[in-house]
Amino acid sequence: MVNRFEKARDAITATPSLVIDLPTVERNLQRLHRYADEAGIRVRPHTKTHKSLFFARQQVAHGCHGLTVAKVGEAEVMAQVADDILIAYPAIDPDRRRRIAELAKTTMVHVAIDSAYAIAVLAEAAQAAGTIIGILIDINVGADRTGVADAAASLELAQLVTQHRSLRLDGIFFYPGQVWSPAEDQESPLHQIDQKLSEAISLWAEHDLACPIVSGGSTPTAYQSHLIKSQTEIRPGTYLFNDMNTVRAGFCQQEDCAAAIICTVVSTAVPGKGVVDAGTKTLTSDRNVLHPNSGHGHVIEYPAAVITRLSEEHGEIDFSACPNRPQVGDRVTIIPNHICPCVNLQNQVILQDAEHRLTPSTVDSRGMLS
Amino acid sequence: MVNRFEKARDAITATPSLVIDLPTVERNLQRLHRYADEAGIRVRPHTKTHKSLFFARQQVAHGCHGLTVAKVGEAEVMAQVADDILIAYPAIDPDRRRRIAELAKTTMVHVAIDSAYAIAVLAEAAQAAGTIIGILIDINVGADRTGVADAAASLELAQLVTQHRSLRLDGIFFYPGQVWSPAEDQESPLHQIDQKLSEAISLWAEHDLACPIVSGGSTPTAYQSHLIKSQTEIRPGTYLFNDMNTVRAGFCQQEDCAAAIICTVVSTAVPGKGVVDAGTKTLTSDRNVLHPNSGHGHVIEYPAAVITRLSEEHGEIDFSACPNRPQVGDRVTIIPNHICPCVNLQNQVILQDAEHRLTPSTVDSRGMLS
Repeated sequence: MVNRFEKARDAITATPSLVIDLPTVERNLQRLHRYADEAGIRVRPHTKTHKSLFFARQQVAHGCHGLTVAKVGEAEVMAQVADDILIAYPAIDPDRRRRIAELAKTTMVHVAIDSAYAIAVLAEAAQAAGTIIGILIDINVGADRTGVADAAASLELAQLVTQHRSLRLDGIFFYPGQVWSPAEDQESPLHQIDQKLSEAISLWAEHDLACPIVSGGSTPTAYQSHLIKSQTEIRPGTYLFNDMNTVRAGFCQQEDCAAAIICTVVSTAVPGKGVVDAGTKTLTSDRNVLHPNSGHGHVIEYPAAVITRLSEEHGEIDFSACPNRPQVGDRVTIIPNHICPCVNLQNQVILQDAEHRLTPSTVDSRGMLS
Repeated sequence: MVNRFEKARDAITATPSLVIDLPTVERNLQRLHRYADEAGIRVRPHTKTHKSLFFARQQVAHGCHGLTVAKVGEAEVMAQVADDILIAYPAIDPDRRRRIAELAKTTMVHVAIDSAYAIAVLAEAAQAAGTIIGILIDINVGADRTGVADAAASLELAQLVTQHRSLRLDGIFFYPGQVWSPAEDQESPLHQIDQKLSEAISLWAEHDLACPIVSGGSTPTAYQSHLIKSQTEIRPGTYLFNDMNTVRAGFCQQEDCAAAIICTVVSTAVPGKGVVDAGTKTLTSDRNVLHPNSGHGHVIEYPAAVITRLSEEHGEIDFSACPNRPQVGDRVTIIPNHICPCVNLQNQVILQDAEHRLTPSTVDSRGMLS
C-alpha cells in the first residue's frame, strides 16, 4: 500500500511528530458533507478531535452548522471561528457557568444538561450576565453515561427551563456512544433510539414545547444518521482524521486515516523487539475499542508488527511476524488507536499538503480541561 | 481519614484541577534523602513526574546529585536548575543528538544508549559541536525494554565509546522496571541484578575501563537500593508525589500521595452512577499496574466508590457501595493511578502550602516529546 506519510516521515526534523495529511482530511470532510446533504441533516462537528482553529475553519468552510466542544475553554477558543457553539457537556460548576454566560454575549451557546441543578445555576449565571443560554435536554439513549431516562423526565426538565427568562429551550441532546456495530447492523439500535426521541418530541409537543434542535451522532453512526429520522444534526469528531478504532470497526479504510505519528526506532537491543520514541505520552494508553488486545496502534511500514507495550516515552514493538526488521535510527509511521486524546498531547502538529509541503500548526485548545 | 485536599477542593476556582500538597512533597523528599544518605547512594530524580522547574529546584535544594530526564526538550528545560543531567533514553535521532551536543556546551550531559549506532552518531554530533557527551551503557536487567543482554555486550559498546574523543565513558545504566513485588520480596531479584551489574563492572575493570556511574532505580525499588551494592545512584520519579500505583503496590501510604485531581460531579442522571468532569484527558487511561481492574483512581471522599469507565472528559463512578452519594455540583478529590502522564496533561498545577494557600505553577516541560 502507498504510504502517504513516507515523504513527511523522512523529511521532518524531530520525532515523535504528529503529521496530518490535508488531502485525506479534505476527502473525509467532503464525504461526510455529501452524505449529510443528501440525508438533509446538519453537521455540527466535535472539535475535541483536532482542537485547532485551522481545522475548525475548514469545517466551517465546508458548511457545518456551528461547532461542538466538550469544555468551556474549547468553546472560548472556537468562538473565534463560529458564532454557534454547542457545549456537549453538563458544564455546571461556578467557573464554567460564569464563562458560558459571558461567552453568550457574543456567541450563540447551547449547553446539554440533565439535571434541575444545571438549569437553576445556568439560569442564574445568565441572568447575572444579562445574557441568554440555550439549553438542550440530554436523554440517555443507551450509552448510560449522562442523560435523563425517558420522555417524561425530559419533559419535566424542559418545563423547568421555560420558567427562566435567561434560558432558551433549544431541544434535545443524545449520544449513541454504545453503537459500535457494523453499519449494516445499526438499523435496529438506531431505530430504537429514534423511537425514544420521537416519544419525547411528541410529549413535548403535547405540552406546547417546540424542539428545534435534536442533536446526536458520533463517528461510528455518522453514515447511518438517516435511520434516526427525528435528529436534526450530528456531531461526529473522529471522522475528520480517523484512527485504528474507526478502521478496525470497519467505519473507514486505512487510507482514510489522515493523522499518524512519525517516530524513530531507538533500540533493538532486546531480541525480537524494536523500541520507538512514542509511548503513552505520545500515543496515550487507550486500547482499541473493539480489539483491546490488538496493540497500541498500527505500524504502516510493518503491517504485521504489534505494538505490545508502552511506557511513558518508549513504544515496544514485536516485529517477529515481519519479513524485515527496522534498524536503530530508522523511522516508522504509527496510526494511533484513538486520535483525539493523542492530538491533545501535542503542542503542535505538522500539516502535509498535496505537494508534501510541511507546515507546523498549533493545537489551540490543547489541555483546556475546564 | 483527614483529607488534606479538602480546603483546596472547596476553594479552587476551576475544575478539574491538579492540586499538589507541598508539605507532603517535603515529607516524601526528606524520607528519600534520609534513606539514601544512610545507604550512601546518590539521588538523581527523574523529572518526568513533575516536569516543573519549581519541583526540580526543590529536589536540587534537598541535595540531589543532578537530574534525570527522558527527552531532550526536558533536558533543555531542566538545565536551568541543574548542571548535570542524565538523559535516560537512547536519544539518537538527528534532531536530538544535535541538541544534546549543543546542551553539552554548558551542562554535563550523560546519555544512556544500547547500540553501536548511538555511539557513532552521538560522537559525530559532539565532534561537530566541539563538545563532549557522556555515555552510559544500558544493560537489560529484566525489564526487557532497552539495554544490551550481558557483560560481554556492554564491554563491546564501552570499548567502542573509548574510540571517540568526543565521548566520555561514564558507566552503566539499568532500569529494574519489572520489580513491583512487595519490598520484603525484592531481595532475590535485586541480588540477581546486582550480580549481573558486578559481572559487567569486573569485566570492564579487566579491560582497564573505569565505571564511575552505575545508575539505576525506580520508585518501587527505591528503598531497597542498598540491595544493589554496585549502583552509585538511583533515579526515582514517582516518589515525589506518589499515586494509586505506589499505594496499591504497598510502596507508600495514601497520606503520602501529594497530588490529586479536584473535580465536579456534573451528572447523576443515570441510576447508580455519578459522572465527574475528569476523563482520560485529565486522568489518562492508564490502568493500575498491579490491580488493572481496580478502576481509574481513588475517590478520597468515597473510599468505596469505583471509577468504572472514562471517556475523554467524563469519569463514570459507581457509588453503589457507598453509604452516601454526592449531588450534582459537589466536588470530589481523585488520586490518579499514574501521576506522571497525568501531570503531563495539565497546563498548570495548583500548589498548596502548609497554610492551605493556593498558587498556580506552570508545568514547564509538559508535552516535550522529542
